[in-house]
Amino acid sequence: MAATSINLAQKLSTFEEAWSPKVVARYNGNDVMVKVKGEFNWHSHADTDDFFLVLKGGLTIRLRDGDVRLGPGEMFVVPVGVEHCPVAEEETHLLLIEPGDTPNTGDAATAAVKELI
Amino acid sequence: MAATSINLAQKLSTFEEAWSPKVVARYNGNDVMVKVKGEFNWHSHADTDDFFLVLKGGLTIRLRDGDVRLGPGEMFVVPVGVEHCPVAEEETHLLLIEPGDTPNTGDAATAAVKELI
Repeated sequence: MAATSINLAQKLSTFEEAWSPKVVARYNGNDVMVKVKGEFNWHSHADTDDFFLVLKGGLTIRLRDGDVRLGPGEMFVVPVGVEHCPVAEEETHLLLIEPGDTPNTGDAATAAVKELI
Repeated sequence: MAATSINLAQKLSTFEEAWSPKVVARYNGNDVMVKVKGEFNWHSHADTDDFFLVLKGGLTIRLRDGDVRLGPGEMFVVPVGVEHCPVAEEETHLLLIEPGDTPNTGDAATAAVKELI
């Protein structure tokens, strides 16, 4: 099969669930994912940074020492081990990158299954 | 210093050079970079995938078995070892991700210095 582009808006249009990690590509063993709206939980990742890019809408990444506010075209990398709580007040489209074996909640017991779409 | 967001358009507005890799963040030892217009050279990376996301404009990634055309919001990961030649017919804004020690041309002798902006 010939290689084809990945259209993020098209991928995002195929599902409705909030904070449901949908894998759209892989990069060096990392999952490249899209997610949508809602409030998430406080968590940290012991082994990896966490990459966030807002495509549409807005996201606040709460950190223990302040908030980072992201609009469309804005990104932030949460450093390894740093506690954070992402909150989207409206429907927000995100591109996230994290290692393929990383639980999205920081805890394998509560992590969502990452579905390839 | 409190953590702050990274606005990609603002970062892109600070330079003019085509295919000049400007590092805007780091993720797990990877450089997160922005680049602009022009035609690049055929090359491959022996040790890494190559992540491309078009923010504005358009990019054709020529592969030996066909082209991949990317518009805004479209992405593609060139697999490790695969020869490719990115071409932007117009001024194009890209988000690229690759390991921090990867030469952008695939060859350390011709690689551009990655500047942190």
